[in-house]
Amino acid sequence: MYRAPLEDMRFLIDEVLRVGDTLGGLPRFEELGVGEDLTAALLDEGAKLAGEVIGPLRRVGDLHPARCEEQKVIISPGYGEAIQQLAQGGWFGISADADFGGQGLPELYGTAASEMWNGADMAFALAPFLSSGAALAISSHGNDALKTTYLEKLHTGEWTGTMNLTESGAGSDLGVMKTRAVPKDDHYLITGQKIYITWGDHDAVDNIVHLVLAKLPDAPEGSSGISLFLVPKFLVNADGSLGERNDVYPVSTEHKLGIHGSPTCVMAFGDSGGAIGYLVGEENRGLTCMFTMMNEARLKVGLQGLGASEGAYQQALAYAKERVQGGVPIIQHPDVKRMLLTMKALNEAMRALAYSEAVTMDLAHYGAEAHQAGSQARIDLMIPVIKGWMTEVGVELTSLGVQVHGGMGYVEETGAAQYLRDVRITPIYEGTNGIQAADLVGRKLGRDGGSTMGAVLDMIRKDANAYLEAGGELATVGSALRDAVALQAVSTETVIQMLASNPEASRAAAFDYMMQTGYLFGAWQLARGANVARLAIQDGSDNEFYAKKIATAAFYAQSILPRCEGYAGAVANAAGALQDYHVGWL
Amino acid sequence: MYRAPLEDMRFLIDEVLRVGDTLGGLPRFEELGVGEDLTAALLDEGAKLAGEVIGPLRRVGDLHPARCEEQKVIISPGYGEAIQQLAQGGWFGISADADFGGQGLPELYGTAASEMWNGADMAFALAPFLSSGAALAISSHGNDALKTTYLEKLHTGEWTGTMNLTESGAGSDLGVMKTRAVPKDDHYLITGQKIYITWGDHDAVDNIVHLVLAKLPDAPEGSSGISLFLVPKFLVNADGSLGERNDVYPVSTEHKLGIHGSPTCVMAFGDSGGAIGYLVGEENRGLTCMFTMMNEARLKVGLQGLGASEGAYQQALAYAKERVQGGVPIIQHPDVKRMLLTMKALNEAMRALAYSEAVTMDLAHYGAEAHQAGSQARIDLMIPVIKGWMTEVGVELTSLGVQVHGGMGYVEETGAAQYLRDVRITPIYEGTNGIQAADLVGRKLGRDGGSTMGAVLDMIRKDANAYLEAGGELATVGSALRDAVALQAVSTETVIQMLASNPEASRAAAFDYMMQTGYLFGAWQLARGANVARLAIQDGSDNEFYAKKIATAAFYAQSILPRCEGYAGAVANAAGALQDYHVGWL
Repeated sequence: MYRAPLEDMRFLIDEVLRVGDTLGGLPRFEELGVGEDLTAALLDEGAKLAGEVIGPLRRVGDLHPARCEEQKVIISPGYGEAIQQLAQGGWFGISADADFGGQGLPELYGTAASEMWNGADMAFALAPFLSSGAALAISSHGNDALKTTYLEKLHTGEWTGTMNLTESGAGSDLGVMKTRAVPKDDHYLITGQKIYITWGDHDAVDNIVHLVLAKLPDAPEGSSGISLFLVPKFLVNADGSLGERNDVYPVSTEHKLGIHGSPTCVMAFGDSGGAIGYLVGEENRGLTCMFTMMNEARLKVGLQGLGASEGAYQQALAYAKERVQGGVPIIQHPDVKRMLLTMKALNEAMRALAYSEAVTMDLAHYGAEAHQAGSQARIDLMIPVIKGWMTEVGVELTSLGVQVHGGMGYVEETGAAQYLRDVRITPIYEGTNGIQAADLVGRKLGRDGGSTMGAVLDMIRKDANAYLEAGGELATVGSALRDAVALQAVSTETVIQMLASNPEASRAAAFDYMMQTGYLFGAWQLARGANVARLAIQDGSDNEFYAKKIATAAFYAQSILPRCEGYAGAVANAAGALQDYHVGWL
Repeated sequence: MYRAPLEDMRFLIDEVLRVGDTLGGLPRFEELGVGEDLTAALLDEGAKLAGEVIGPLRRVGDLHPARCEEQKVIISPGYGEAIQQLAQGGWFGISADADFGGQGLPELYGTAASEMWNGADMAFALAPFLSSGAALAISSHGNDALKTTYLEKLHTGEWTGTMNLTESGAGSDLGVMKTRAVPKDDHYLITGQKIYITWGDHDAVDNIVHLVLAKLPDAPEGSSGISLFLVPKFLVNADGSLGERNDVYPVSTEHKLGIHGSPTCVMAFGDSGGAIGYLVGEENRGLTCMFTMMNEARLKVGLQGLGASEGAYQQALAYAKERVQGGVPIIQHPDVKRMLLTMKALNEAMRALAYSEAVTMDLAHYGAEAHQAGSQARIDLMIPVIKGWMTEVGVELTSLGVQVHGGMGYVEETGAAQYLRDVRITPIYEGTNGIQAADLVGRKLGRDGGSTMGAVLDMIRKDANAYLEAGGELATVGSALRDAVALQAVSTETVIQMLASNPEASRAAAFDYMMQTGYLFGAWQLARGANVARLAIQDGSDNEFYAKKIATAAFYAQSILPRCEGYAGAVANAAGALQDYHVGWL
C-alpha cells in the first residue's frame, strides 16, 4: 500500500528549497505562515488521505472501471466518497486564489499533494487535476460573472471541471475542429462531439464545469479561429442554485490500457438543440487561454510519471524484502538491488527536479517583479523536460517494478503491472512527448537562441565545480556532472545550429535532446540535495538520511548519468542517416 | 493485420547466411534440398498460415481469455482449429528428427517459422513452442519406449507438450521443490502442484504430454536431487491407443497482463492418489535434461521479443501512413519517422542476430565434428544475449508502437497496447533477464576467461575494418562498429576482472553488460547484411531493397549504437556507488 515519501518531500521543501525563505516572505504568501511547520502539517494530512483513502481505491478502480450507461457515468466504488474527502480537506484549491475559495498556498505544496494523489491512484488523481486546470482557465480569462458563479465551487471541490479539446480525427491538431458555437442572447449554443474527456461525467458532485474549445460561425480558418467556452452540466440560477440540465451528455467511455477508474468520455454537446455555453476570454483567443494552464498541467503529468514510479518502487521494494530465492531475500541479489536503486535514484531525481521548478513557477507568478520574467523563461524551458522526461522514465521504472516481481509481476492480482498500464498514457496526453520535445527545441531554445538553457548550464557548471572542490563522494558527483554539462552544451549547440540551417533535423533530434536534458537536470537537482546533506553531516548531523542522499546521488552520477552519452550520440547524428532515410522506405 | 516480413527473411536466409552453402551440404540435411527454393516454399506457406489463420486470433484471444472450468481449460475461439492446421502443415516438428515424425529441417527454418507465429499471435505461438521443448527433452534423454510412444505424436502435433518446473514460492530457485515422485512397478506416482504451466490443459488435441520436475524420496538436497518425468494426460495403451485419464488436472488459470489466449495453469498432480509418470533420463539428473533444451527455448523467447515488435511496427506504420495531422500523414513528422525507423532498424538487427545464431545452433548440432565444439561455445555465449537483449528491446519497441498511435494507442480496441502487454512477460520467463545477464557474465565469460567473446569481437573488428575500407555509407557503419567493439572490449575486460576480484560487482554489472553486448551484436549482424547489399549493388542490382538495407544499418550505427556508451558507463562503475550502497538503505 502506498505511503507518501514524507521524509524526502520534507527534505526537499524545507532544507533544499527552503520554502520559508524562498517563498514565505512574498506578498502572496506572507500571512500564511509558509515554512517548516506548515510543510509538516500539510504533508501529514495529505499523506493520511493518500494512504488511507485514495490508495485503497487503486485496485478497485482497475477492477471496476468507470462506465457509461444511459447518458450517465457510473464511477468506481468509493471514488465519490474520496472526492468528497479531498474537497473537505481543501485540497482542490490548494494553490488557488484565496479570493475565490482557494487556499492561496504555493504551487510547491500543490505539487507535493499532486504527487501523493498520483502515487496513491493515478486514475483518481485525474479528477482534482482536471478540475484545477478548468479553474485556472476561468481564473485567468473568465469575466467576473463567471468567476463569481463557478470559480469558488471548483476551488472548494463542490463541483469539478473538465477540459474538452480533442475531437475524433484531430488529436494534437486543433485547427481542424468541428465543434461550433453560435451566439444567442447572453450566451452561445454549442454543438459537436469531443473525445478523450477525462472525468467527463460522474455523480460524485452536484455539477460539472466543462471548458470547451469551439469555433464561432465567422471564425478564421485554423487554430487562430478557436474560442473557449464554459458549459456547465447544470445551468446555474442567479442565486447560485442549480437550474436546468444543460444539453451536454457522456456518450460512452473508452476501454483503456489503464487508469480504468478515470472515466474517459466521448461527450456530446447540443444533441437536443445546443448546449448553453459562456465565452471565456476573448473570441478566437481560445488557444491562448489554453496555453495559460499548459505549464501547470504538464508539470502535473510529469508528477504522474513520478507518482506511479514511486508507488511501483514501494511495492517492488516490499516484495524484494519478502521474497526468498536461493536462501536469501531477492533484494540481496545484486541485479535486484540495481533495479531497485535505479528506481529510487530516478524517483528522487524526478522529485527534486519537479519540486525545484514548482518553486520557479511560484516565483514567476508571485516573486519579485524584476525576476518574474526570468523565472517564467526558466519554467517555460523546464516544463517540456519535466513532462517528457519524467513520463518516459515513469514507463521505464514501472516496468522495472514488474520485473522485480518476476512471474508474479505479470499476474494482475499483484497490482504491479497496473502501475505500468496506468502510467503508459502519460507520454501521450497533454501533448505527446514528441510535441514536448519539439516545444523544447523549436520554441524554448529557438526563441532566445538558447540563452535560458545556457544560463541553466552555467548554474550546473558552477555547482559541479563546487562539488568537485568539496571532495569526497560529492567530488564524484561533481566530476560526472561537469562532463555531462559539457556534453549538454555540445548537444545544445548542435540543435540550435540545426534550427537555423536544417529545422527538420532539429525536430528529428528533439526527443533525444529532451531525454539527455532530463537526465542532466535530474542529476543536478539530486546533487543539490546531496550537497545540502553533506553540509548537514559537516555540521554534525548523524541522521542516516543524509548519508543515503549522498550515496543515491553518487549512484545516479555513476550509473544513470552515462545514458546522456547515448542520447548525445543520437542528437549529433540526427542530420545524418535518420534525415537521409526516405520515408517511403519505412 | 500481420504479414510475415518475407523479403527480409529470404534475404537473411539465402543471401546473408547462404543456407544452401552453409547447411545444405551437411549430412543431416543433404537430402532435403535445403536452399533458395525450399526457403521460398516454406516461408510462403508459413506466411499464409501466420497471416490468414493465426494473426486473426490475436485480438480474439485477448478478448476471450483461456479459462479453467471444472478441471478443464476452455481455450479461446479458433485456437483449436489453428493448432490443427499448424499440425497438418508439419510445423510442430519442423526441425525435429525425421526418424520420429519430424521434418528434420535446420533450426534456421524453425526460427523463421517461430518468428512468424509470434508476430501473428504470441499467445498462440506458445503452444508449438512448449510442445517442441517437451519433445526435445524426450528426444535427448528419453528411452526408446518413451520415444516410440510419445515423440512422433508431439512432432506431428497430434498431441502437445508442456514443461512443469515452477512451484509456488520457488520461481527461479528449483532447489526447494516440493513435488514428489515415488517409484511403483514400471512407473512413478507423482504428487504436487506446479504453477505458470503454459498451455497446461486444453482440448484442441487428444492428449497432452507433461514433462515434470520432481524429487525422488531419497533424493539429495537442492538442485542435484531433481528428476524429470513424463506424465501424460491420458495413459497410452501398448497399441498406442489412449487409455485411462491420468491424475493430472488444471486447477485454475492466471489472470495476466497479456497473452490471454495462452492458458497459464496451476496444475495438480496426484490429488487422487498419484499421477502416473515415467522417468526421463537418469534419476536426479532432471536439471541436466532441462539444460539440454534451454538454448532452443531461450532463442524462441528472444524471437517473441522480435515477433511482437514486428507486429507492433507493422501496425504503427500502417497507422502513421493513414493518420493525418497538420495536413500531412504523421509519418512525415520527423519524430514519428524517428520512432518508426528505430523500430524497423532494431527489428532487423534482432532478426539478423537470431537467424545468424540459429545457424550456429545447427552447426553445433550437425556441422562438421571438428567445429561443433566451437559452434557450441559460440551459441552458449549468444543465447543469453539473444534472450535478454531482444526481450528488453521488445518491450521498448512495442511501447513505441503505442506511442506512434497517440491517444488511440491507449485505447484497447486499436490492438497496439496488446503487443506491449503480451511481450512484457518475455523479460521474465524462461529465466529472468537478470538470470540471463548473470549467465552471460558468470558462466559464459567466466568459464573460458572471455576467449569465446574475444573471438567474436575479433570477427567484428575484422568486419568493421573491411567496411571502413569499402567506403561510402558502409564506412560510416564500419567506423561506428569499430568504436563500439573497442568499448565492448573494455567492458568485457572490466567484468572479467570483477569475476576474479569482486564477483558481486560482476553481478551488478551484468545486466548493463548484456545490453551493451546486444546492441553491438545487433549492429554487427545488420552491418553484415548491409555489406551483402553493397556487393549486390556493386554487381549491378538496382533492387531498392539493397539500398534500404544500407540506409537502415547506417541509421542504427549512428543513432542506436551510441546507447552502448551509456551501458558501458554503468558497467565501468558497477563496483562503485552501486556496490557501496547499503541494501538496508533502499
